[in-house]
Amino acid sequence: MFMGASTKKGYDIASKSRKIVRSLIENKIRHLSPQERSIIERIVHSTADTEYADITKMSGDFVSESIDSIVKGKDILTDINMVKVGINKYFGDIKCYINHENTVELAQKENITRTAAAMKIAMFEGFEGIVVIGNSPTALFEVLNLVEDHEMKVQSVVGVPVGFVGAAESKKALQKSKIPHLVTEGPKGGTPVAVAVVNSLINLKKEF
Amino acid sequence: MFMGASTKKGYDIASKSRKIVRSLIENKIRHLSPQERSIIERIVHSTADTEYADITKMSGDFVSESIDSIVKGKDILTDINMVKVGINKYFGDIKCYINHENTVELAQKENITRTAAAMKIAMFEGFEGIVVIGNSPTALFEVLNLVEDHEMKVQSVVGVPVGFVGAAESKKALQKSKIPHLVTEGPKGGTPVAVAVVNSLINLKKEF
Repeated sequence: MFMGASTKKGYDIASKSRKIVRSLIENKIRHLSPQERSIIERIVHSTADTEYADITKMSGDFVSESIDSIVKGKDILTDINMVKVGINKYFGDIKCYINHENTVELAQKENITRTAAAMKIAMFEGFEGIVVIGNSPTALFEVLNLVEDHEMKVQSVVGVPVGFVGAAESKKALQKSKIPHLVTEGPKGGTPVAVAVVNSLINLKKEF
Repeated sequence: MFMGASTKKGYDIASKSRKIVRSLIENKIRHLSPQERSIIERIVHSTADTEYADITKMSGDFVSESIDSIVKGKDILTDINMVKVGINKYFGDIKCYINHENTVELAQKENITRTAAAMKIAMFEGFEGIVVIGNSPTALFEVLNLVEDHEMKVQSVVGVPVGFVGAAESKKALQKSKIPHLVTEGPKGGTPVAVAVVNSLINLKKEF
């Protein structure tokens, strides 16, 4: 059903919410494609924060590359388990290596964060697909390095880390790269934003 | 370690972030207890949204009742799995009945949402402890009804559902009740806020 709803009551609430969201932000997103508008509406639905209509930016190839990856059933890689758990109804694999047996050891050895080490583990494991960073700026910087060094096969990046230390900078760096991407400019972002984007991409065929 | 960090690098970032957060909101939360300030700082750290220093409100007994429940190892009940997964290092049980075998059937039978039905299932299963609502206003309304009818044993409620349909109203209703509570007034809230509050409560002894 619509936007994760599994009952009539849930569907009614989601529909009403979507109408309210649309009325609040339609002027801000009028210039975007229907798919891009749908993604941003779902972010605002999930966060109740209309500022996301201003700060969410996508490269022109983000939607097409992401849907291509999803249609092909490639992996989705998340930085933390909260993001993984929120993604619904994907027939491919959703990977998160934060609790992999080698992650902490690698992080300590290289003096990097656990989430950054988890990106390296993903690369060692042959990851290919969409990277979804909902929390960790250092994980996003690591992905940018690994792609630049041609070590990681990334079709698109949902780059919405959150916080006052490095998040804005990591998203600027992603925007400067050639990787198809979605970012939330500035310090804001987080798990619900990341989850909203990916679930919206998975549902895009049904919604249009 | 501090605020979920498991490496030196992660600890350094969390410490730096906490200092920035403190400088941004200290004037707004000066009148609160050290424990209450710590909870709000962690919410702002997790969301990068200083508005939470204005809209987060706790009843005077929220911290003491919540810590009492945690010390006694009582259950923590969440509305959705994303919230459950984000809670770290609790030695008691964290329950979520959204995927329980009877939840969807009960929701359809009573024409309620799945998250509201999950609260009823928790009650049938003998839940006692802290209720954490990170997403669903209908789940929060259900808890208020069940407590009013003396059917559910709730020591405190973290009531931070999000959205434009019912969230603000459900939190107002919680504030009017006698249940020890924390809310975020208005439509904002969500998983990271809920998780920040509970992890802060679990860590409070260590932080002070």
